[in-house]
Amino acid sequence: MSPSENKTIFAPATLVGESSITVTRISGKDTFSILTKIFSLSGEAFKCIDFTRRQTHSAHHGYIFDGKEIIDEVVATIFKSPNSYTGEDVAEISLHGGSYIFRKLNGLLSKHGAVFAEPGEFTKRAFLNGKLDLSQAEAVADLIRSKTELASKAAMKQLKGSLSVYIKSLRDELINYCSLVELELDFSEEDLEIVPKKVLLSKIDNIMQNIVNLSQSYESGKIIRDGVNLTIAGKPNVGKSSIFNYLLKESRAIVSEIPGTTRDYLQEPLIMGGIVFNLVDTAGIHDSGDLIEKEGVRRSHAKIAESDITLHVIDLTDEKTVDKKHTLKVGDNSRVLTVYNKCDLNPTQVDYGLCVSALTGENMNELQCRVIELARTLIRGSEGMEILITNERHRDCLLKSCEYLVNCKNLILSNAGNELISFEIREAMRQLEEIIGKTTNVDILNNIFSKFCIGK
Amino acid sequence: MSPSENKTIFAPATLVGESSITVTRISGKDTFSILTKIFSLSGEAFKCIDFTRRQTHSAHHGYIFDGKEIIDEVVATIFKSPNSYTGEDVAEISLHGGSYIFRKLNGLLSKHGAVFAEPGEFTKRAFLNGKLDLSQAEAVADLIRSKTELASKAAMKQLKGSLSVYIKSLRDELINYCSLVELELDFSEEDLEIVPKKVLLSKIDNIMQNIVNLSQSYESGKIIRDGVNLTIAGKPNVGKSSIFNYLLKESRAIVSEIPGTTRDYLQEPLIMGGIVFNLVDTAGIHDSGDLIEKEGVRRSHAKIAESDITLHVIDLTDEKTVDKKHTLKVGDNSRVLTVYNKCDLNPTQVDYGLCVSALTGENMNELQCRVIELARTLIRGSEGMEILITNERHRDCLLKSCEYLVNCKNLILSNAGNELISFEIREAMRQLEEIIGKTTNVDILNNIFSKFCIGK
Repeated sequence: MSPSENKTIFAPATLVGESSITVTRISGKDTFSILTKIFSLSGEAFKCIDFTRRQTHSAHHGYIFDGKEIIDEVVATIFKSPNSYTGEDVAEISLHGGSYIFRKLNGLLSKHGAVFAEPGEFTKRAFLNGKLDLSQAEAVADLIRSKTELASKAAMKQLKGSLSVYIKSLRDELINYCSLVELELDFSEEDLEIVPKKVLLSKIDNIMQNIVNLSQSYESGKIIRDGVNLTIAGKPNVGKSSIFNYLLKESRAIVSEIPGTTRDYLQEPLIMGGIVFNLVDTAGIHDSGDLIEKEGVRRSHAKIAESDITLHVIDLTDEKTVDKKHTLKVGDNSRVLTVYNKCDLNPTQVDYGLCVSALTGENMNELQCRVIELARTLIRGSEGMEILITNERHRDCLLKSCEYLVNCKNLILSNAGNELISFEIREAMRQLEEIIGKTTNVDILNNIFSKFCIGK
Repeated sequence: MSPSENKTIFAPATLVGESSITVTRISGKDTFSILTKIFSLSGEAFKCIDFTRRQTHSAHHGYIFDGKEIIDEVVATIFKSPNSYTGEDVAEISLHGGSYIFRKLNGLLSKHGAVFAEPGEFTKRAFLNGKLDLSQAEAVADLIRSKTELASKAAMKQLKGSLSVYIKSLRDELINYCSLVELELDFSEEDLEIVPKKVLLSKIDNIMQNIVNLSQSYESGKIIRDGVNLTIAGKPNVGKSSIFNYLLKESRAIVSEIPGTTRDYLQEPLIMGGIVFNLVDTAGIHDSGDLIEKEGVRRSHAKIAESDITLHVIDLTDEKTVDKKHTLKVGDNSRVLTVYNKCDLNPTQVDYGLCVSALTGENMNELQCRVIELARTLIRGSEGMEILITNERHRDCLLKSCEYLVNCKNLILSNAGNELISFEIREAMRQLEEIIGKTTNVDILNNIFSKFCIGK
């Protein structure tokens, strides 16, 4: 525990700027004694309240004072330990918006011994006080970042603890097997086999399958949380930027008839069909001697490599490539959608596949539908699953847990001693516990909470 | 009253974005019935509360539901009419921050018949319900915008009603004289003189002086509220942009040895000595045939005309102008501070006045002190005054009020009838009442509140 964890902390809980109100949150054992010193019911005489005698969850209209100066007219709402977000005594002061008053209050709180909170420190305290487990705390950050219904629902589910419950059930099962194995150890001289090894093996197999399934849900989970990387690629001057602009409904990329207009990639978020896409327009892929263009092409390939879906654009009027089934270097071709552009210039309509015109908009709806459909199949992997993970840390813990269980299986098969088997099961358990924060070390905790926004 | 004023309104009271919480405020007669339909104490079963039976100023932890879907875990704080900001039933819902959840709640509230509030609509309702007078409502907007202690204090004073009290006292005095004049009218056949005209004249003179003083405080008040326009001007290549950058402590303006580097003016806010300055760097003033430069010079003159303080920069090494007391076309010369730049290149130090070097920083502190001192004299005009106005609308009302009182004096001097005198006094009163919103018409009200931020 860092020394500041005994301190009373404060930070804005809202964004600070010109708005109706800004909420500053205070948490810690001195919350009410500090509030009593700076809050008055009256704007004239200094009429203070003993907040320790007021009901929890009560809101109080009054004034923030510094000596004789009124800083603001506010509403202070108090939440008494343990019935607060952090589990400590908490006050939320609704100031008038604007940065000046906010800074004044900061100065006043510091003067009275409170310290400005680290990012995530409120949620960290909630975790340390047992108000949330670690996966729930992480869900708070995800919920705030969520931009779509899918992402928000996944985070809400995790916040409500469904992941924790499932992880605990897996862990409890492992505890069970571990106890049996260790019990046998106690009776080892009697050569008692409490669980037949074959049964244990099948149980471990079963639990491993569940862990693997859950870890695989990360791929969908990540897309749900962070969005689908959708990269538009192809040769120069096929109309990539026109398609990019069309999908964004704005003239974001400069478009011209000169091949190579886009030299560096452009990236914009886009929501279609309730799914977040990270839409990327890339430089046209071709051999070039120009150094800037070369770098652009290198970046195009990098973007294609990290994309979830690639829109491969081909120019219908370019007879040299249109028939050649020119392909992109992409790992997984099921994630490439080939689209033939400039169909307005090629009225013969040979059936190449999806022919569109970013200029007239012809078939562009169809293109959007296909992209959404493809994105849905990526997400759909997790559809049967009630629970999915959206966090890389969780996936890593699950994979490590699996590794220990693989070791465990090998030990059983090679008739190793129960003390070795039990060790591996315990390590597998520990990995699961790290997800919900039962055994997580301080560095990992600090790392997790440092990614939170200030005031959370 | 617009039809929406019967409606229940909602809007974010905080800025919306990635933050710990976003507060959505709801106000109107249906607030609690809507809240009851969307708020549950439990995240599992739908456990609703009858908020009309809960205490005012109480905070409730629970979940926002839409049908079977949980939208967020929230705290809802209720304020019962008339003990709320608007005077109506009010609820403030603290959601997790982030725009997705916020939009979901918006949709849900709309579905239940609430409408998104106009800018300033909460404060307008507070005004219409007598919770604030108009000058106090305007102070709310000023307080939010305030960037310095002076601005914040002036707004806080106005919010607490000191301006309103003073205006009311002036109005009450006028009511008094008006009644006496009208009383004489009732007894006109008896030729009774209740107040000798000489006495009335001196009373009117006295009140006029108070109104003029208050209207003149606007000049200081405006500076306190909006900042001091500080314009740097002079011939090309005297080092204006270097001084601009030095004061800002950043390389905001491109600086070169080529005269005419700055072609259009640049403008940046700057706080020195607790005062906000709007610092302007202008193009060098000279005769030029170049069209862009000509436009630049035109703009320089316009900026000088609207500046509160002009820094006139002269190049110490330029022997042609340094002795000539080259002056700028400025209305009020007491507001020009002449500064001789490049003293690092001219070690003889003939005593021209304030010699500085924006390159080495020599005497730049002195320059800052003199600017702050000059700005303080502009503000100091109002120092003796307990009350000052910061609002153009208020000044206009005061000036109009004075005009009516001038008419009134002339009528008295020309022995006009009491009915004419009384009319002018009543009009003068009406102007004062408009400041605090006693007689303000709907268009003016709408105009005032439309300048507020959303959610206030």
